[in-house]
Amino acid sequence: MAPDLARAIVCRPPQDGRRQWKLEDIEVYTPAEGEVLVKIIASGVCHTDLGCGSFPDGVGFPVPPYPRVLGHEGAGYVTRVGKGVTKVKPGDSVLLSFAYCGECHNCRNGAPGYCAEFTPLNFCGNPKAFGAPNSKESHGIGGSFFGQSSFSNLTRVQEASVVRVTDLVKNEDDLKLFAPLGCGIQAARHRGCRTIIGIDRVEARLDLARSLGATHTINTSTVGEGLEKAVRDITDGSGSTITVDATGVVALIQQGIEFTANQGKMILLGVAPMDAALQVALVSFMVVSESPSLRLNKSDRSVKTGKQLLGSMEGGVRPADYVPRMIQWYRHGDFPIDKLIKYYKVEEFEQAIHDMEEGTTVKPILLW
Amino acid sequence: MAPDLARAIVCRPPQDGRRQWKLEDIEVYTPAEGEVLVKIIASGVCHTDLGCGSFPDGVGFPVPPYPRVLGHEGAGYVTRVGKGVTKVKPGDSVLLSFAYCGECHNCRNGAPGYCAEFTPLNFCGNPKAFGAPNSKESHGIGGSFFGQSSFSNLTRVQEASVVRVTDLVKNEDDLKLFAPLGCGIQAARHRGCRTIIGIDRVEARLDLARSLGATHTINTSTVGEGLEKAVRDITDGSGSTITVDATGVVALIQQGIEFTANQGKMILLGVAPMDAALQVALVSFMVVSESPSLRLNKSDRSVKTGKQLLGSMEGGVRPADYVPRMIQWYRHGDFPIDKLIKYYKVEEFEQAIHDMEEGTTVKPILLW
Repeated sequence: MAPDLARAIVCRPPQDGRRQWKLEDIEVYTPAEGEVLVKIIASGVCHTDLGCGSFPDGVGFPVPPYPRVLGHEGAGYVTRVGKGVTKVKPGDSVLLSFAYCGECHNCRNGAPGYCAEFTPLNFCGNPKAFGAPNSKESHGIGGSFFGQSSFSNLTRVQEASVVRVTDLVKNEDDLKLFAPLGCGIQAARHRGCRTIIGIDRVEARLDLARSLGATHTINTSTVGEGLEKAVRDITDGSGSTITVDATGVVALIQQGIEFTANQGKMILLGVAPMDAALQVALVSFMVVSESPSLRLNKSDRSVKTGKQLLGSMEGGVRPADYVPRMIQWYRHGDFPIDKLIKYYKVEEFEQAIHDMEEGTTVKPILLW
Repeated sequence: MAPDLARAIVCRPPQDGRRQWKLEDIEVYTPAEGEVLVKIIASGVCHTDLGCGSFPDGVGFPVPPYPRVLGHEGAGYVTRVGKGVTKVKPGDSVLLSFAYCGECHNCRNGAPGYCAEFTPLNFCGNPKAFGAPNSKESHGIGGSFFGQSSFSNLTRVQEASVVRVTDLVKNEDDLKLFAPLGCGIQAARHRGCRTIIGIDRVEARLDLARSLGATHTINTSTVGEGLEKAVRDITDGSGSTITVDATGVVALIQQGIEFTANQGKMILLGVAPMDAALQVALVSFMVVSESPSLRLNKSDRSVKTGKQLLGSMEGGVRPADYVPRMIQWYRHGDFPIDKLIKYYKVEEFEQAIHDMEEGTTVKPILLW
């Protein structure tokens, strides 16, 4: 069968350190066994896309060589299914999440985000996923990023990445709004926390955090060196019981460990640079502060013991269970994703990325 | 009231890098408010005692200056109680554990091992806990280590450190056997694990591990660089879901993180040197292996994601609940502590330490 033509954001090698992304025509082949052809109507943009489309070939994550199509928060309609597909049929509404093998220890135990094959299935993808109508690129265009490469108005998706939401969305507007649920917003929900501290350097995002339930906010651009003290002041000296880093910035993660309470959890969500290393001072991490002030001041509560450092991937959830739950929260008014997103026409993708990097938009959604 | 005379292992500053511990007479004052006077009949020896009695003044853990009395796995009988004490009365059989404030976030939430005051209460102790009959040391002798300093046949103990076991022990032999339950053995019990891998460099300890339920053992002195591979071979390539380090050796901890499964827990139990730092490669810890082989070999299962690094303190348990539970396990034949311990007369403490350091004795208990 002749390939379909589609419109996609194609990433080419960076020039002078600047990303080179352009809307182009690509060829989409007929779905192979276990694949689904999806007409994309909306795609959330995530920092992982920006990262994976910005570094030169051969460095960074093991993604297919340039040119490549990224995007891993797609929403759309199934138009065709390959052999063996049972989850969906043509016409189904779907949200796209990540791919997993379904057979390894973690997949079998309800944690596909920690699949043993996560890297090959989601990052390595397929170096020849799409055809290039431009004959000079006969080697093809890389794709199957997170099993989906949804920065295209038509794409082949691994069945594992598909979450069927036909019965959960009322209309196309719903489907657009829910696009980022497959990745970006899976870990965002605070439930029953008494004290929620939002930390950012952009005041507008702190305003947003307060409107969404943060009881306190700290602006890192004004608090300077005093971040740990600021958090401890809010938490009666104990520090935060759960700290979630969404920045991937090592200096902030290091501070996060410091201001996490004894036996508290420091959860790594933001993706750090490939070569970033965290220094964990073992003794103070597990048992005792080295602070000489302890000899003098028995009421110093800045001791740090029993810390937990957790790498989190895709919120540690099963999308098939969790995406519908988030939709229900939204329906009940408990999960105002509409306040977190902003729509852009796909032609405005550069503006969307600019607003995201500046911090004025939390989650851009591109409309196809 | 005149102080009682007692016999104790007194630690003095190391000479030529060697610890200087001697059995000496000390003076034990009458118990203050919230304190209990305990006649010690047995004391377990722990690596933390060896560490805290070996470094020069001013370095290492914030313990009282030399001379000092250590010991934090005591067992004995209450002979007198200070004002306000409600937990025990004279004649009670007690096991001694760690001290905690009872008021901070973690104490109130069932995790006194992560008490905000853990360091001052357990390490800083009391620099003048005991009197020195030798008038040249008029500044006194440090104690209240873990609220107990039980390397003495009579000692003042913080009420928080006391676990009353009057109704749980049948006789004095029981009490001696249970001495280490307050610390050393609190985290040792594996329950319901299908695969248990014992790793050591001493074959006799691996034999013991097998006799106690280890399904596999690995001798690090013969496996060399291949430790990760050896663990993965046993675990179908996945790695260990729970890794417990009881060595405090950074190189082994680093390898432990490598061979821990995706979403597995690496639990830090052994105390590392004060200045030891672990390098955590953030990206591979949370999300993806950097291995270029992944581009070639999709079945490479050595990817490392969603790891958890946990600092553990005193097993994270409440001794008042957990010590009786361990005694019940022992009674039912599920917890053969008698195979882990070896008794020594207190005069033989140097031999006990030697056997422990050599690895031939897992847990020495000194009898007073």
